[in-house]
Amino acid sequence: MRVDLNSDLGEGYGPWTMGDDAAMLDIVSTANIACGFHAGDPDIMRATVRLAKERGVAFGAHPGYNDLIGFGRRRVPGLSLAEIESLVAYQVGAMAAIAALEGHPMTHVKTHGALGNVSADDDATALAVGRAIKAVDPKLAFMVMPGTATARAAEKLGLTPINEIYADRTYADSFNLSPRSEPGSVIHDPDLLVERVISMVWEGCLTSTSGKRLEVPIGSICVHGDTPGAVAMARQLRAALEKAGWTIGSSVHP
Amino acid sequence: MRVDLNSDLGEGYGPWTMGDDAAMLDIVSTANIACGFHAGDPDIMRATVRLAKERGVAFGAHPGYNDLIGFGRRRVPGLSLAEIESLVAYQVGAMAAIAALEGHPMTHVKTHGALGNVSADDDATALAVGRAIKAVDPKLAFMVMPGTATARAAEKLGLTPINEIYADRTYADSFNLSPRSEPGSVIHDPDLLVERVISMVWEGCLTSTSGKRLEVPIGSICVHGDTPGAVAMARQLRAALEKAGWTIGSSVHP
Amino acid sequence: MRVDLNSDLGEGYGPWTMGDDAAMLDIVSTANIACGFHAGDPDIMRATVRLAKERGVAFGAHPGYNDLIGFGRRRVPGLSLAEIESLVAYQVGAMAAIAALEGHPMTHVKTHGALGNVSADDDATALAVGRAIKAVDPKLAFMVMPGTATARAAEKLGLTPINEIYADRTYADSFNLSPRSEPGSVIHDPDLLVERVISMVWEGCLTSTSGKRLEVPIGSICVHGDTPGAVAMARQLRAALEKAGWTIGSSVHP
Amino acid sequence: MRVDLNSDLGEGYGPWTMGDDAAMLDIVSTANIACGFHAGDPDIMRATVRLAKERGVAFGAHPGYNDLIGFGRRRVPGLSLAEIESLVAYQVGAMAAIAALEGHPMTHVKTHGALGNVSADDDATALAVGRAIKAVDPKLAFMVMPGTATARAAEKLGLTPINEIYADRTYADSFNLSPRSEPGSVIHDPDLLVERVISMVWEGCLTSTSGKRLEVPIGSICVHGDTPGAVAMARQLRAALEKAGWTIGSSVHP
Repeated sequence: MRVDLNSDLGEGYGPWTMGDDAAMLDIVSTANIACGFHAGDPDIMRATVRLAKERGVAFGAHPGYNDLIGFGRRRVPGLSLAEIESLVAYQVGAMAAIAALEGHPMTHVKTHGALGNVSADDDATALAVGRAIKAVDPKLAFMVMPGTATARAAEKLGLTPINEIYADRTYADSFNLSPRSEPGSVIHDPDLLVERVISMVWEGCLTSTSGKRLEVPIGSICVHGDTPGAVAMARQLRAALEKAGWTIGSSVHP
Repeated sequence: MRVDLNSDLGEGYGPWTMGDDAAMLDIVSTANIACGFHAGDPDIMRATVRLAKERGVAFGAHPGYNDLIGFGRRRVPGLSLAEIESLVAYQVGAMAAIAALEGHPMTHVKTHGALGNVSADDDATALAVGRAIKAVDPKLAFMVMPGTATARAAEKLGLTPINEIYADRTYADSFNLSPRSEPGSVIHDPDLLVERVISMVWEGCLTSTSGKRLEVPIGSICVHGDTPGAVAMARQLRAALEKAGWTIGSSVHP
Repeated sequence: MRVDLNSDLGEGYGPWTMGDDAAMLDIVSTANIACGFHAGDPDIMRATVRLAKERGVAFGAHPGYNDLIGFGRRRVPGLSLAEIESLVAYQVGAMAAIAALEGHPMTHVKTHGALGNVSADDDATALAVGRAIKAVDPKLAFMVMPGTATARAAEKLGLTPINEIYADRTYADSFNLSPRSEPGSVIHDPDLLVERVISMVWEGCLTSTSGKRLEVPIGSICVHGDTPGAVAMARQLRAALEKAGWTIGSSVHP
Repeated sequence: MRVDLNSDLGEGYGPWTMGDDAAMLDIVSTANIACGFHAGDPDIMRATVRLAKERGVAFGAHPGYNDLIGFGRRRVPGLSLAEIESLVAYQVGAMAAIAALEGHPMTHVKTHGALGNVSADDDATALAVGRAIKAVDPKLAFMVMPGTATARAAEKLGLTPINEIYADRTYADSFNLSPRSEPGSVIHDPDLLVERVISMVWEGCLTSTSGKRLEVPIGSICVHGDTPGAVAMARQLRAALEKAGWTIGSSVHP
């Protein structure tokens, strides 16, 4: 009974910071580190890898659209599939090199923000992301949303999937996240959040808001690190998981 | 009797182009491709790698300072050696990943512009560059200026050096380039340029403007691709070298 | 019988150039100068203003989306109307200041690329653009597409309109440009292009591809400066207009 | 007995924030707002102007080098004086336009970071900055360091000076700031800081660390907003000044 907790970290840029990476790295077992296009820069990437290594925390590349001012949260229209490949490969390769400087190899890739949303929705995009990962290193795992295009792409390309769930979000029938605009789609009550996560992990099952079920082994639970109360919430979730008998640890090994 | 001709290519950005890369790739045997910090973007990098592969032209990463608007020609003050390592590793890793997409592995790394000047002047910087190269892939060659800090760094770190000379520039006693501000430091006369290059390659010797000599095997000759008449000049030099009995080809093999 | 010829200029960035601005400024009577977000930088803006002033050519600000690598040709989703106002005001104010350095006041504002397309389509966006122009200087004219949202916004806000037509494009029934994907929507034949422009200017009438007519006085004719043959085409059009008895000159005066 | 308290604000970018602008704007009487080159973006500029207007706080433009990742703290070598003019005019004009959107005109200009240091050191640079200010609006005041090149430039160009002192820094004999590397150059003890400021304001006199004195009316006191404890320190200083009989208010009026 082992489960991974992950968080998106290294999301500062130049003089700016976001969230408390050191505190989150004391809680999670996996970090997804921004690669310089929507956030992060070579020095922040390296400092985050070093903090992860010091704590024995695994990490992956977290590439996004080339949209610093928009933090990668806006869709960039009109990119070809070849452009998606180049966008992702560039960032993953850059992260691999930073990891090499610190002697802490990365384990996986997870797409960020709007690129993540598009990848989950669109099979062609998810396959382009997957091909980029595979070209850089076919042993890298692909952190996917079960039941979506990213999960299908990992399977088709023979990439190891990490089935990720979001601790604080509900699911649509497509098993994509319910839109934030939908009331109740973001869970703020810590007790409810913990109860839901433990139920999903225990049963190996996602349930959409309409009651549709997807049986799937849960590989990793995403907790956010950049909102007020994020650190406390993550700590509470970890404690509850451990109390319920789960060991927290990375789901892949480099 | 084999010598390499190289040129700095892939120096466009987004909608902008610089020079005629396709024409230069018909002439040179090695390309140094910008990595997105002073010029280049993932799509231009990839297109340039593809053009090189189609012609059997070798290529390397050409990292520079993070200074797009200044084209990497201005020194960025105050970077620590760790920051130099991260700066170079990030770009080299990104280029390696783009190369993987095209199945045309890179052979070497050459520093661009002001980063090149600082690397040739300063042993600590050159060693930081070298450590970044080695961390990404110790089999990558380091294109160096003979007699300068980059050559010493390659030797100290056990990286394969490529001894580069500049076709159109004169040398100071440090065997760095004479400053452009010095009259005669840039050679515009094609006949003189060709004569000088053939003499250096034939004798395996660099001569400074004051007459100081450095005996060194010449690994590669840099021809510029971004000035008016650049393509014609490069073509003339290649023809002259071939007429003198030299074969043009990359000095390293992936 | 006076008509204005305009072109989008100052579209370089840092070390990169686009088109032959000096040649175009010998032909057109008005320049639209990029403001640093999709192209242009403070030095290029200033150099372009100076070239315009030397030739007695009027100019306006040509703001676009904040998307350098995409050259402002991609829609940036999710901007609020307040963000559109800030985006446009920032760029117009910056251009006004550069103009002040050169003592050559600007006359108008024209939106670039995808921002231009969205402004022509969407009344709320066009009004936000217009409010930004008015806040900076209510005497600035608004270069609009007759029959579209930009023309309605100029009228509603009391901004002087400059009715612009495109020399090389056909019109949909909305009097927006026909999409480039539509066969024949871009006119490459110089004789046909000249004939169409003279007819539109002479009759004061735009005709859509389906035959719908919009009677409107033509204030300015846009000629492109960044494609092969652009300068020759612009020169030919100017000569034809002059031969037909038209005087070429800016439609507004600072 | 009236004195101005100022702080450098609006120093976020895109998704990132720096310091607590709203809290500082409850304390200071003048804000210097970043203009998008080293920090700030059109939306942050506008939001900061609005916060200032709501509190009746005056504000000025705070232009810096075009160096987002370095936060304008690094000198950009090799800029011509014309390039300094364009750099400053662009940012000041952009800020004027954002101010116009909010109906809260700006009062002055203060250079940021490395551009501020170079301006205080070098008369030619300070004059270039001053010419840019004057070109945009000759009624804008120039916030200067008394005894330095910026003060001389304001006088020579006929710009209204605002004589600024730093609450937490000591002075060299040039009346530039003592370098941070010098022990004691940054004052951390709140009581000492308050005592020093009150003494300088009361006597109208700056004293260098070696005891050299410069008699000058103090126009504004800079308090930092981006360090831990900054808000508390600023509040304490304001209270002490008011207790000593000073009224806090902007030194210029739009």
